[in-house]
Amino acid sequence: MRIRIANHSGFCFGVKRAIKIAQEIRKERKGKVLTLGDLIHNKRVIEELRKEGIDSVDDISKINEGTVIIRSHGVSPSVIDQLKKKQIEIIDATCPFVKRIQRLAKKIVDSGYELIIAGDPNHPEIRALIGYTNGEGVIINSLQEIKNLKKKSRRAIIAQSTQDINFFKEIVSRLIDITNELRVLNTICDSTRIRQKSTSKLASEVDVMFIVGDKKSSNTNKLFKIAKEIQPKTYFIENADDIKPEMINSYEEIGISAGASTPQDLIDEVINKIKGIKTNKCYGERESTWMN
Amino acid sequence: MRIRIANHSGFCFGVKRAIKIAQEIRKERKGKVLTLGDLIHNKRVIEELRKEGIDSVDDISKINEGTVIIRSHGVSPSVIDQLKKKQIEIIDATCPFVKRIQRLAKKIVDSGYELIIAGDPNHPEIRALIGYTNGEGVIINSLQEIKNLKKKSRRAIIAQSTQDINFFKEIVSRLIDITNELRVLNTICDSTRIRQKSTSKLASEVDVMFIVGDKKSSNTNKLFKIAKEIQPKTYFIENADDIKPEMINSYEEIGISAGASTPQDLIDEVINKIKGIKTNKCYGERESTWMN
Repeated sequence: MRIRIANHSGFCFGVKRAIKIAQEIRKERKGKVLTLGDLIHNKRVIEELRKEGIDSVDDISKINEGTVIIRSHGVSPSVIDQLKKKQIEIIDATCPFVKRIQRLAKKIVDSGYELIIAGDPNHPEIRALIGYTNGEGVIINSLQEIKNLKKKSRRAIIAQSTQDINFFKEIVSRLIDITNELRVLNTICDSTRIRQKSTSKLASEVDVMFIVGDKKSSNTNKLFKIAKEIQPKTYFIENADDIKPEMINSYEEIGISAGASTPQDLIDEVINKIKGIKTNKCYGERESTWMN
Repeated sequence: MRIRIANHSGFCFGVKRAIKIAQEIRKERKGKVLTLGDLIHNKRVIEELRKEGIDSVDDISKINEGTVIIRSHGVSPSVIDQLKKKQIEIIDATCPFVKRIQRLAKKIVDSGYELIIAGDPNHPEIRALIGYTNGEGVIINSLQEIKNLKKKSRRAIIAQSTQDINFFKEIVSRLIDITNELRVLNTICDSTRIRQKSTSKLASEVDVMFIVGDKKSSNTNKLFKIAKEIQPKTYFIENADDIKPEMINSYEEIGISAGASTPQDLIDEVINKIKGIKTNKCYGERESTWMN
Protein backbone atom coordinates (compact mmCIF):
# COMPACT_ATOMS: atom_id res chain seq x y z
CA MET A 1 0.00 0.00 0.00
CA ARG A 2 1.21 3.46 -0.87
CA ILE A 3 -0.17 6.86 0.07
CA ARG A 4 0.70 9.48 -2.52
CA ILE A 5 0.25 13.22 -2.03
CA ALA A 6 -0.34 15.50 -5.03
CA ASN A 7 2.22 18.27 -5.56
CA HIS A 8 1.25 21.72 -4.25
CA SER A 9 -1.41 20.32 -1.91
CA GLY A 10 -2.40 22.60 0.92
CA PHE A 11 -1.72 26.27 1.63
CA CYS A 12 -0.83 28.33 -1.41
CA PHE A 13 1.49 31.34 -1.43
CA GLY A 14 -1.35 33.85 -0.98
CA VAL A 15 -2.88 32.04 1.97
CA LYS A 16 0.46 31.51 3.75
CA ARG A 17 1.25 35.18 3.22
CA ALA A 18 -2.13 36.39 4.57
CA ILE A 19 -1.84 34.24 7.71
CA LYS A 20 1.74 35.39 8.30
CA ILE A 21 0.74 39.05 7.90
CA ALA A 22 -2.20 38.59 10.32
CA GLN A 23 -0.04 36.88 12.93
CA GLU A 24 2.72 39.50 12.71
CA ILE A 25 0.24 42.36 12.99
CA ARG A 26 -1.37 40.63 15.99
CA LYS A 27 2.00 40.63 17.75
CA GLU A 28 2.67 44.29 16.94
CA ARG A 29 -0.70 45.89 17.72
CA LYS A 30 -2.22 46.29 21.14
CA GLY A 31 -5.78 46.95 20.01
CA LYS A 32 -8.27 44.70 18.23
CA VAL A 33 -7.06 42.84 15.16
CA LEU A 34 -9.91 41.69 12.92
CA THR A 35 -10.16 40.06 9.53
CA LEU A 36 -12.94 41.18 7.22
CA GLY A 37 -14.54 37.83 6.50
CA ASP A 38 -12.80 34.55 7.29
CA LEU A 39 -9.12 34.82 6.42
CA ILE A 40 -9.36 31.50 4.59
CA HIS A 41 -12.13 29.00 3.96
CA ASN A 42 -11.15 26.55 6.68
CA LYS A 43 -13.00 26.28 10.01
CA ARG A 44 -10.05 24.85 11.88
CA VAL A 45 -7.61 27.57 10.87
CA ILE A 46 -10.17 30.26 11.69
CA GLU A 47 -10.63 28.74 15.15
CA GLU A 48 -6.88 28.71 15.75
CA LEU A 49 -6.54 32.31 14.64
CA ARG A 50 -9.38 33.27 16.99
CA LYS A 51 -7.43 31.69 19.86
CA GLU A 52 -4.44 33.84 18.89
CA GLY A 53 -6.65 36.94 19.09
CA ILE A 54 -7.48 37.41 15.44
CA ASP A 55 -11.26 37.55 15.11
CA SER A 56 -13.26 37.41 11.91
CA VAL A 57 -16.06 39.92 11.30
CA ASP A 58 -18.38 39.69 8.32
CA ASP A 59 -20.23 42.96 8.65
CA ILE A 60 -18.31 46.17 8.14
CA SER A 61 -20.83 48.10 10.27
CA LYS A 62 -19.65 46.15 13.30
CA ILE A 63 -16.07 47.39 12.93
CA ASN A 64 -15.47 50.64 14.79
CA GLU A 65 -11.88 50.45 16.03
CA GLY A 66 -8.55 48.67 15.71
CA THR A 67 -6.90 47.09 12.73
CA VAL A 68 -8.55 45.24 9.86
CA ILE A 69 -6.75 42.66 7.75
CA ILE A 70 -8.00 42.38 4.16
CA ARG A 71 -7.88 38.70 3.30
CA SER A 72 -6.16 37.17 0.25
CA HIS A 73 -9.35 37.39 -1.87
CA GLY A 74 -9.30 41.19 -1.67
CA VAL A 75 -12.20 43.63 -1.26
CA SER A 76 -13.79 46.19 -3.55
CA PRO A 77 -12.54 49.80 -3.41
CA SER A 78 -15.82 50.89 -1.77
CA VAL A 79 -15.06 48.69 1.25
CA ILE A 80 -11.64 50.33 1.61
CA ASP A 81 -13.34 53.74 1.43
CA GLN A 82 -15.80 52.83 4.17
CA LEU A 83 -13.01 51.61 6.45
CA LYS A 84 -10.97 54.75 5.77
CA LYS A 85 -13.92 56.94 6.71
CA LYS A 86 -14.10 55.13 10.03
CA GLN A 87 -10.37 55.73 10.47
CA ILE A 88 -9.73 52.02 10.87
CA GLU A 89 -6.16 50.87 10.18
CA ILE A 90 -6.18 48.74 7.02
CA ILE A 91 -3.61 46.00 6.42
CA ASP A 92 -4.00 44.72 2.89
CA ALA A 93 -3.15 41.01 2.65
CA THR A 94 -4.77 40.62 -0.78
CA CYS A 95 -2.85 38.00 -2.75
CA PRO A 96 -0.59 39.77 -5.29
CA PHE A 97 -1.92 37.48 -8.02
CA VAL A 98 -5.47 38.56 -7.19
CA LYS A 99 -4.37 42.22 -7.19
CA ARG A 100 -3.08 41.70 -10.73
CA ILE A 101 -6.49 40.38 -11.82
CA GLN A 102 -8.15 43.47 -10.32
CA ARG A 103 -5.81 45.74 -12.29
CA LEU A 104 -6.37 43.77 -15.50
CA ALA A 105 -10.17 43.85 -15.13
CA LYS A 106 -10.12 47.64 -14.78
CA LYS A 107 -7.81 48.02 -17.77
CA ILE A 108 -10.01 45.79 -19.94
CA VAL A 109 -13.19 47.70 -19.14
CA ASP A 110 -11.40 51.04 -19.67
CA SER A 111 -10.19 49.93 -23.10
CA GLY A 112 -13.71 49.23 -24.33
CA TYR A 113 -13.59 45.44 -24.49
CA GLU A 114 -16.49 43.49 -23.04
CA LEU A 115 -15.12 41.81 -19.92
CA ILE A 116 -15.92 38.16 -19.31
CA ILE A 117 -15.08 36.75 -15.88
CA ALA A 118 -14.93 32.97 -15.52
CA GLY A 119 -15.84 32.77 -11.86
CA ASP A 120 -18.41 32.37 -9.12
CA PRO A 121 -20.39 35.59 -8.53
CA ASN A 122 -20.77 34.67 -4.85
CA HIS A 123 -17.07 34.05 -4.23
CA PRO A 124 -15.40 36.91 -2.29
CA GLU A 125 -12.65 37.25 -4.91
CA ILE A 126 -15.20 37.92 -7.64
CA ARG A 127 -17.39 40.14 -5.43
CA ALA A 128 -14.28 42.24 -4.76
CA LEU A 129 -13.15 42.18 -8.41
CA ILE A 130 -16.41 43.55 -9.74
CA GLY A 131 -15.90 46.58 -7.50
CA TYR A 132 -12.87 47.50 -9.63
CA THR A 133 -14.95 47.62 -12.83
CA ASN A 134 -17.89 49.52 -11.29
CA GLY A 135 -20.01 46.44 -11.77
CA GLU A 136 -19.11 45.97 -15.43
CA GLY A 137 -18.28 42.50 -16.67
CA VAL A 138 -20.24 39.34 -17.45
CA ILE A 139 -19.61 36.63 -14.84
CA ILE A 140 -19.81 33.12 -16.27
CA ASN A 141 -20.17 30.35 -13.70
CA SER A 142 -21.70 27.67 -15.94
CA LEU A 143 -21.49 26.84 -19.64
CA GLN A 144 -25.26 27.33 -19.84
CA GLU A 145 -24.77 31.06 -19.18
CA ILE A 146 -22.74 31.55 -22.38
CA LYS A 147 -25.87 30.91 -24.42
CA ASN A 148 -27.19 34.32 -23.34
CA LEU A 149 -24.25 36.08 -24.98
CA LYS A 150 -24.54 37.59 -28.44
CA LYS A 151 -22.00 38.03 -31.24
CA LYS A 152 -19.53 40.75 -30.33
CA SER A 153 -16.56 42.37 -31.96
CA ARG A 154 -14.19 42.59 -28.97
CA ARG A 155 -14.12 40.68 -25.72
CA ALA A 156 -11.52 39.88 -23.08
CA ILE A 157 -11.73 37.01 -20.65
CA ILE A 158 -10.09 36.59 -17.24
CA ALA A 159 -10.54 33.88 -14.62
CA GLN A 160 -10.98 33.67 -10.87
CA SER A 161 -7.47 32.82 -9.62
CA THR A 162 -8.62 29.37 -8.48
CA GLN A 163 -10.69 28.55 -11.58
CA ASP A 164 -10.71 25.05 -13.11
CA ILE A 165 -8.48 25.34 -16.20
CA ASN A 166 -10.66 22.97 -18.25
CA PHE A 167 -13.79 25.00 -17.51
CA PHE A 168 -11.90 28.17 -18.48
CA LYS A 169 -10.76 26.61 -21.77
CA GLU A 170 -14.28 25.42 -22.54
CA ILE A 171 -15.64 28.96 -22.10
CA VAL A 172 -12.89 30.30 -24.40
CA SER A 173 -13.72 27.65 -26.97
CA ARG A 174 -17.37 28.71 -27.05
CA LEU A 175 -16.60 32.43 -27.06
CA ILE A 176 -14.44 31.96 -30.18
CA ASP A 177 -17.66 31.19 -32.10
CA ILE A 178 -19.26 34.52 -31.18
CA THR A 179 -16.31 36.92 -30.88
CA ASN A 180 -14.16 38.48 -33.60
CA GLU A 181 -11.30 39.32 -31.28
CA LEU A 182 -11.00 37.55 -27.95
CA ARG A 183 -8.19 38.44 -25.56
CA VAL A 184 -7.55 35.51 -23.28
CA LEU A 185 -5.82 36.38 -20.03
CA ASN A 186 -5.15 33.18 -18.19
CA THR A 187 -5.21 34.55 -14.65
CA ILE A 188 -5.46 31.19 -12.94
CA CYS A 189 -2.57 31.31 -10.48
CA ASP A 190 0.40 28.98 -10.92
CA SER A 191 -0.24 27.28 -7.60
CA THR A 192 -3.82 26.42 -8.67
CA ARG A 193 -2.68 25.23 -12.08
CA ILE A 194 0.03 22.95 -10.72
CA ARG A 195 -2.27 21.61 -7.96
CA GLN A 196 -5.03 20.83 -10.49
CA LYS A 197 -2.60 19.22 -12.91
CA SER A 198 -0.92 17.04 -10.29
CA THR A 199 -4.33 16.11 -8.84
CA SER A 200 -5.59 14.98 -12.26
CA LYS A 201 -2.43 12.95 -12.83
CA LEU A 202 -2.56 11.35 -9.40
CA ALA A 203 -6.29 10.55 -9.73
CA SER A 204 -5.52 8.64 -12.93
CA GLU A 205 -2.87 6.55 -11.18
CA VAL A 206 -4.44 5.55 -7.85
CA ASP A 207 -7.23 3.19 -6.73
CA VAL A 208 -8.96 5.74 -4.50
CA MET A 209 -8.59 9.48 -4.08
CA PHE A 210 -9.20 11.76 -1.05
CA ILE A 211 -9.59 15.52 -1.47
CA VAL A 212 -8.99 17.21 1.86
CA GLY A 213 -10.41 20.61 2.73
CA ASP A 214 -13.40 22.65 3.80
CA LYS A 215 -16.64 22.33 1.81
CA LYS A 216 -16.84 26.14 1.72
CA SER A 217 -13.54 26.29 -0.15
CA SER A 218 -14.12 26.98 -3.83
CA ASN A 219 -10.77 25.66 -5.02
CA THR A 220 -11.10 22.45 -2.97
CA ASN A 221 -14.50 21.82 -4.54
CA LYS A 222 -12.94 22.27 -7.98
CA LEU A 223 -10.17 19.79 -7.12
CA PHE A 224 -12.86 17.33 -6.03
CA LYS A 225 -14.73 17.76 -9.33
CA ILE A 226 -11.55 17.34 -11.39
CA ALA A 227 -10.48 14.18 -9.51
CA LYS A 228 -13.99 12.67 -9.46
CA GLU A 229 -14.25 12.87 -13.26
CA ILE A 230 -11.07 10.82 -13.58
CA GLN A 231 -11.38 8.51 -10.57
CA PRO A 232 -15.03 7.86 -9.57
CA LYS A 233 -13.81 6.60 -6.17
CA THR A 234 -12.97 10.12 -5.01
CA TYR A 235 -14.10 11.38 -1.57
CA PHE A 236 -14.35 14.89 -0.14
CA ILE A 237 -12.77 14.81 3.34
CA GLU A 238 -13.33 17.68 5.78
CA ASN A 239 -11.60 15.93 8.66
CA ALA A 240 -9.94 12.60 9.36
CA ASP A 241 -13.15 11.17 10.90
CA ASP A 242 -14.80 11.32 7.46
CA ILE A 243 -12.58 8.44 6.33
CA LYS A 244 -14.29 5.09 6.76
CA PRO A 245 -12.58 1.70 6.41
CA GLU A 246 -14.88 0.75 3.51
CA MET A 247 -13.51 3.66 1.49
CA ILE A 248 -10.04 2.18 1.64
CA ASN A 249 -10.77 -1.56 1.38
CA SER A 250 -7.76 -3.39 0.08
CA TYR A 251 -6.72 -0.64 -2.31
CA GLU A 252 -3.02 -0.52 -3.02
CA GLU A 253 -2.58 3.04 -4.27
CA ILE A 254 -4.21 5.83 -2.26
CA GLY A 255 -4.05 9.42 -3.48
CA ILE A 256 -4.45 12.61 -1.46
CA SER A 257 -4.79 16.18 -2.61
CA ALA A 258 -5.79 19.27 -0.64
CA GLY A 259 -7.06 22.77 -1.43
CA ALA A 260 -5.16 26.04 -1.03
CA SER A 261 -6.82 26.64 2.35
CA THR A 262 -6.14 23.21 3.87
CA PRO A 263 -3.55 23.26 6.68
CA GLN A 264 -0.73 20.70 6.68
CA ASP A 265 -1.73 19.25 10.08
CA LEU A 266 -5.15 18.30 8.68
CA ILE A 267 -3.45 16.53 5.76
CA ASP A 268 -1.20 14.76 8.29
CA GLU A 269 -4.21 13.64 10.32
CA VAL A 270 -5.81 12.17 7.21
CA ILE A 271 -2.60 10.26 6.40
CA ASN A 272 -2.42 8.92 9.98
CA LYS A 273 -6.07 7.88 9.90
CA ILE A 274 -5.51 5.90 6.69
CA LYS A 275 -2.37 4.30 8.15
CA GLY A 276 -4.35 3.39 11.28
CA ILE A 277 -7.14 1.71 9.34
CA LYS A 278 -4.62 -0.21 7.28
CA THR A 279 -2.63 -1.30 10.36
CA ASN A 280 -5.77 -2.53 12.14
CA LYS A 281 -6.57 -4.58 9.09
CA CYS A 282 -3.05 -6.08 9.14
CA TYR A 283 -2.22 -5.22 5.55
CA GLY A 284 1.43 -5.42 6.58
CA GLU A 285 2.41 -2.22 4.78
CA ARG A 286 5.89 -0.87 5.34
CA GLU A 287 6.50 2.60 6.70
CA SER A 288 9.05 3.28 3.99
CA THR A 289 6.38 3.19 1.33
CA TRP A 290 4.62 6.33 2.62
CA MET A 291 5.29 9.18 0.31
CA ASN A 292 5.14 12.81 1.30
CA MET B 1 -34.46 7.58 -50.11
CA ARG B 2 -33.50 11.17 -49.65
CA ILE B 3 -30.46 13.10 -50.90
CA ARG B 4 -29.63 16.02 -48.64
CA ILE B 5 -27.17 18.78 -49.52
CA ALA B 6 -25.30 20.65 -46.75
CA ASN B 7 -25.85 24.41 -46.63
CA HIS B 8 -23.16 26.54 -48.27
CA SER B 9 -21.83 23.65 -50.35
CA GLY B 10 -19.83 24.66 -53.38
CA PHE B 11 -18.34 27.97 -54.51
CA CYS B 12 -17.83 30.50 -51.75
CA PHE B 13 -18.09 34.26 -52.13
CA GLY B 14 -14.33 34.67 -52.75
CA VAL B 15 -14.18 32.00 -55.43
CA LYS B 16 -17.29 33.23 -57.26
CA ARG B 17 -15.88 36.76 -57.17
CA ALA B 18 -12.46 35.70 -58.53
CA ILE B 19 -14.00 33.74 -61.41
CA LYS B 20 -16.33 36.62 -62.26
CA ILE B 21 -13.45 39.11 -62.26
CA ALA B 22 -11.34 36.83 -64.48
CA GLN B 23 -14.18 36.34 -66.98
CA GLU B 24 -14.99 40.06 -67.13
CA ILE B 25 -11.35 41.00 -67.66
CA ARG B 26 -11.08 38.34 -70.38
CA LYS B 27 -13.93 40.00 -72.26
CA GLU B 28 -12.42 43.48 -71.84
CA ARG B 29 -8.75 42.83 -72.69
CA LYS B 30 -7.36 41.98 -76.08
CA GLY B 31 -3.99 40.63 -74.91
CA LYS B 32 -3.15 37.58 -72.81
CA VAL B 33 -5.09 37.06 -69.57
CA LEU B 34 -3.33 34.79 -67.12
CA THR B 35 -3.92 33.69 -63.56
CA LEU B 36 -0.91 33.31 -61.30
CA GLY B 37 -1.43 29.73 -60.16
CA ASP B 38 -4.73 27.93 -60.64
CA LEU B 39 -7.61 30.30 -59.94
CA ILE B 40 -9.21 27.65 -57.74
CA HIS B 41 -8.29 24.12 -56.74
CA ASN B 42 -10.53 22.36 -59.21
CA LYS B 43 -9.27 20.74 -62.42
CA ARG B 44 -12.59 20.97 -64.23
CA VAL B 45 -13.05 24.69 -63.62
CA ILE B 46 -9.45 25.38 -64.64
CA GLU B 47 -10.04 23.48 -67.88
CA GLU B 48 -13.18 25.50 -68.61
CA LEU B 49 -11.38 28.77 -67.93
CA ARG B 50 -8.61 27.70 -70.28
CA LYS B 51 -11.19 27.17 -73.01
CA GLU B 52 -12.43 30.72 -72.36
CA GLY B 53 -8.86 32.01 -72.86
CA ILE B 54 -7.78 32.34 -69.23
CA ASP B 55 -4.57 30.39 -68.80
CA SER B 56 -2.90 29.50 -65.54
CA VAL B 57 0.85 30.08 -65.08
CA ASP B 58 2.74 28.92 -62.02
CA ASP B 59 6.08 30.54 -62.62
CA ILE B 60 6.29 34.31 -62.54
CA SER B 61 9.40 34.26 -64.78
CA LYS B 62 7.23 32.98 -67.63
CA ILE B 63 4.99 36.04 -67.52
CA ASN B 64 6.23 38.82 -69.75
CA GLU B 65 3.14 40.56 -71.08
CA GLY B 66 -0.59 40.97 -70.73
CA THR B 67 -2.78 40.92 -67.65
CA VAL B 68 -2.37 38.80 -64.52
CA ILE B 69 -5.23 37.92 -62.22
CA ILE B 70 -4.24 37.40 -58.56
CA ARG B 71 -6.37 34.52 -57.30
CA SER B 72 -8.56 34.57 -54.16
CA HIS B 73 -5.72 33.22 -51.96
CA GLY B 74 -3.64 36.35 -52.57
CA VAL B 75 0.11 36.67 -53.15
CA SER B 76 2.93 38.16 -51.11
CA PRO B 77 3.90 41.81 -51.69
CA SER B 78 7.18 40.69 -53.32
CA VAL B 79 5.23 38.96 -56.09
CA ILE B 80 3.31 42.17 -56.77
CA ASP B 81 6.60 44.06 -56.89
CA GLN B 82 8.06 41.63 -59.44
CA LEU B 83 4.98 41.93 -61.65
CA LYS B 84 5.09 45.73 -61.40
CA LYS B 85 8.73 45.77 -62.46
CA LYS B 86 7.76 43.80 -65.55
CA GLN B 87 4.99 46.34 -66.19
CA ILE B 88 2.38 43.62 -66.23
CA GLU B 89 -1.21 44.72 -65.54
CA ILE B 90 -2.29 43.31 -62.18
CA ILE B 91 -5.92 42.55 -61.37
CA ASP B 92 -6.21 41.69 -57.72
CA ALA B 93 -8.97 39.13 -57.09
CA THR B 94 -7.74 38.30 -53.57
CA CYS B 95 -10.74 37.45 -51.40
CA PRO B 96 -11.54 40.46 -49.16
CA PHE B 97 -11.64 38.13 -46.14
CA VAL B 98 -8.11 36.94 -46.96
CA LYS B 99 -6.98 40.55 -47.40
CA ARG B 100 -8.24 41.26 -43.88
CA ILE B 101 -6.11 38.39 -42.51
CA GLN B 102 -3.04 39.82 -44.29
CA ARG B 103 -3.65 43.22 -42.66
CA LEU B 104 -4.20 41.64 -39.23
CA ALA B 105 -1.01 39.57 -39.47
CA LYS B 106 1.05 42.66 -40.24
CA LYS B 107 -0.56 44.60 -37.39
CA ILE B 108 0.10 41.79 -34.91
CA VAL B 109 3.78 41.49 -35.81
CA ASP B 110 4.18 45.30 -35.71
CA SER B 111 2.65 45.44 -32.22
CA GLY B 112 5.24 43.02 -30.79
CA TYR B 113 3.02 40.01 -30.24
CA GLU B 114 4.29 36.62 -31.35
CA LEU B 115 2.11 35.66 -34.31
CA ILE B 116 0.72 32.14 -34.49
CA ILE B 117 -0.90 31.07 -37.76
CA ALA B 118 -3.13 28.01 -37.71
CA GLY B 119 -2.61 26.92 -41.29
CA ASP B 120 -0.78 24.86 -43.86
CA PRO B 121 2.64 26.34 -44.75
CA ASN B 122 2.31 24.94 -48.29
CA HIS B 123 -1.12 26.44 -48.95
CA PRO B 124 -0.96 29.48 -51.26
CA GLU B 125 -2.98 31.60 -48.80
CA ILE B 126 -0.38 31.03 -46.08
CA ARG B 127 2.60 31.39 -48.42
CA ALA B 128 1.17 34.77 -49.45
CA LEU B 129 0.31 35.76 -45.86
CA ILE B 130 3.82 35.22 -44.57
CA GLY B 131 5.02 37.75 -47.12
CA TYR B 132 3.10 40.43 -45.24
CA THR B 133 4.99 39.74 -42.00
CA ASN B 134 8.44 39.48 -43.62
CA GLY B 135 8.51 35.81 -42.75
CA GLU B 136 7.60 36.34 -39.09
CA GLY B 137 4.99 34.09 -37.50
CA VAL B 138 4.88 30.49 -36.31
CA ILE B 139 2.77 28.33 -38.61
CA ILE B 140 1.01 25.49 -36.80
CA ASN B 141 -0.31 22.72 -39.02
CA SER B 142 -0.46 19.90 -36.47
CA LEU B 143 -0.97 19.76 -32.70
CA GLN B 144 2.43 18.09 -32.43
CA GLU B 145 4.10 21.34 -33.50
CA ILE B 146 2.78 23.24 -30.45
CA LYS B 147 5.10 21.20 -28.25
CA ASN B 148 8.07 23.15 -29.66
CA LEU B 149 6.65 26.42 -28.33
CA LYS B 150 7.86 27.89 -25.05
CA LYS B 151 6.07 29.97 -22.42
CA LYS B 152 5.52 33.47 -23.70
CA SER B 153 4.01 36.65 -22.38
CA ARG B 154 2.08 37.81 -25.45
CA ARG B 155 0.85 35.93 -28.47
CA ALA B 156 -1.86 36.43 -31.08
CA ILE B 157 -3.36 33.68 -33.18
CA ILE B 158 -5.06 33.89 -36.57
CA ALA B 159 -6.29 31.11 -38.86
CA GLN B 160 -6.17 30.27 -42.54
CA SER B 161 -9.59 31.40 -43.83
CA THR B 162 -10.61 27.78 -44.52
CA GLN B 163 -9.26 26.29 -41.29
CA ASP B 164 -11.13 23.58 -39.38
CA ILE B 165 -12.72 25.40 -36.42
CA ASN B 166 -12.17 22.47 -34.05
CA PHE B 167 -8.46 22.31 -34.89
CA PHE B 168 -8.23 26.07 -34.34
CA LYS B 169 -9.93 25.79 -30.95
CA GLU B 170 -7.65 22.93 -29.92
CA ILE B 171 -4.57 25.04 -30.69
CA VAL B 172 -6.02 27.93 -28.66
CA SER B 173 -6.72 25.57 -25.78
CA ARG B 174 -3.10 24.42 -25.71
CA LEU B 175 -1.67 27.91 -26.13
CA ILE B 176 -3.61 29.07 -23.06
CA ASP B 177 -1.30 26.87 -20.95
CA ILE B 178 1.84 28.62 -22.18
CA THR B 179 0.72 32.20 -22.86
CA ASN B 180 -0.08 34.98 -20.39
CA GLU B 181 -2.06 37.00 -22.90
CA LEU B 182 -3.41 35.35 -26.01
CA ARG B 183 -5.34 37.38 -28.59
CA VAL B 184 -7.58 35.07 -30.53
CA LEU B 185 -8.63 36.39 -33.92
CA ASN B 186 -11.05 33.95 -35.43
CA THR B 187 -10.34 34.64 -39.10
CA ILE B 188 -12.06 31.53 -40.40
CA CYS B 189 -14.46 32.99 -42.97
CA ASP B 190 -18.21 32.77 -42.40
CA SER B 191 -18.73 30.66 -45.48
CA THR B 192 -16.21 28.06 -44.20
CA ARG B 193 -17.73 28.11 -40.72
CA ILE B 194 -21.26 27.59 -41.94
CA ARG B 195 -20.20 24.92 -44.43
CA GLN B 196 -18.28 23.00 -41.75
CA LYS B 197 -21.12 23.31 -39.25
CA SER B 198 -23.80 22.16 -41.68
CA THR B 199 -21.54 19.32 -42.91
CA SER B 200 -21.04 18.08 -39.30
CA LYS B 201 -24.76 18.25 -38.67
CA LEU B 202 -25.66 16.48 -41.89
CA ALA B 203 -22.99 13.77 -41.33
CA SER B 204 -24.61 12.98 -37.98
CA GLU B 205 -28.04 12.56 -39.58
CA VAL B 206 -27.40 10.48 -42.73
CA ASP B 207 -26.45 6.86 -43.48
CA VAL B 208 -23.66 7.74 -45.90
CA MET B 209 -21.88 10.97 -46.77
CA PHE B 210 -20.19 12.17 -49.98
CA ILE B 211 -17.74 15.09 -49.95
CA VAL B 212 -17.39 16.46 -53.47
CA GLY B 213 -14.33 18.35 -54.64
CA ASP B 214 -10.76 18.24 -55.82
CA LYS B 215 -8.20 16.38 -53.69
CA LYS B 216 -5.89 19.40 -54.01
CA SER B 217 -8.49 21.58 -52.29
CA SER B 218 -7.50 22.24 -48.67
CA ASN B 219 -10.99 23.17 -47.48
CA THR B 220 -12.57 20.11 -49.17
CA ASN B 221 -10.04 17.88 -47.39
CA LYS B 222 -11.00 19.49 -44.09
CA LEU B 223 -14.69 18.91 -44.79
CA PHE B 224 -13.90 15.26 -45.50
CA LYS B 225 -12.00 14.93 -42.20
CA ILE B 226 -14.82 16.59 -40.22
CA ALA B 227 -17.52 14.38 -41.78
CA LYS B 228 -15.46 11.18 -41.54
CA GLU B 229 -15.03 11.62 -37.77
CA ILE B 230 -18.78 11.75 -37.36
CA GLN B 231 -19.90 9.33 -40.10
CA PRO B 232 -17.27 6.65 -40.88
CA LYS B 233 -19.10 5.92 -44.15
CA THR B 234 -17.87 9.16 -45.73
CA TYR B 235 -16.34 9.19 -49.24
CA PHE B 236 -14.20 11.77 -51.04
CA ILE B 237 -15.64 12.19 -54.55
CA GLU B 238 -13.66 13.96 -57.27
CA ASN B 239 -16.13 13.18 -59.99
CA ALA B 240 -19.40 11.28 -60.41
CA ASP B 241 -17.59 8.15 -61.64
CA ASP B 242 -16.03 7.73 -58.17
CA ILE B 243 -19.47 6.74 -56.84
CA LYS B 244 -19.93 2.96 -56.84
CA PRO B 245 -23.24 1.18 -56.19
CA GLU B 246 -21.77 -0.56 -53.11
CA MET B 247 -21.22 2.85 -51.45
CA ILE B 248 -24.94 3.53 -51.59
CA ASN B 249 -26.42 0.09 -50.90
CA SER B 250 -29.90 0.41 -49.53
CA TYR B 251 -29.15 3.51 -47.48
CA GLU B 252 -32.13 5.76 -46.93
CA GLU B 253 -30.48 9.08 -46.10
CA ILE B 254 -27.61 10.23 -48.33
CA GLY B 255 -25.68 13.40 -47.51
CA ILE B 256 -23.64 15.57 -49.84
CA SER B 257 -21.33 18.44 -49.08
CA ALA B 258 -18.82 20.20 -51.31
CA GLY B 259 -15.80 22.45 -50.88
CA ALA B 260 -15.54 26.15 -51.71
CA SER B 261 -13.94 25.35 -55.08
CA THR B 262 -16.46 22.74 -56.22
CA PRO B 263 -18.65 23.91 -59.11
CA GLN B 264 -22.41 23.40 -58.94
CA ASP B 265 -22.51 21.26 -62.12
CA LEU B 266 -20.17 18.71 -60.50
CA ILE B 267 -22.48 18.55 -57.47
CA ASP B 268 -25.41 18.08 -59.88
CA GLU B 269 -23.60 15.24 -61.66
CA VAL B 270 -23.00 13.48 -58.36
CA ILE B 271 -26.70 13.82 -57.47
CA ASN B 272 -27.70 12.42 -60.88
CA LYS B 273 -25.26 9.53 -60.54
CA ILE B 274 -26.76 8.57 -57.17
CA LYS B 275 -30.29 8.85 -58.58
CA GLY B 276 -29.23 6.65 -61.50
CA ILE B 277 -27.82 3.91 -59.28
CA LYS B 278 -30.92 3.97 -57.14
CA THR B 279 -33.24 3.83 -60.16
CA ASN B 280 -31.37 0.88 -61.65
CA LYS B 281 -31.79 -0.91 -58.39
CA CYS B 282 -35.52 -0.14 -58.45
CA TYR B 283 -35.67 1.49 -55.06
CA GLY B 284 -38.76 3.28 -56.30
CA GLU B 285 -37.81 6.67 -54.93
CA ARG B 286 -39.96 9.65 -55.79
CA GLU B 287 -38.56 12.71 -57.47
CA SER B 288 -40.20 14.94 -54.93
CA THR B 289 -37.99 13.59 -52.15
CA TRP B 290 -34.80 15.07 -53.63
CA MET B 291 -33.73 18.04 -51.65
CA ASN B 292 -31.55 20.84 -52.97
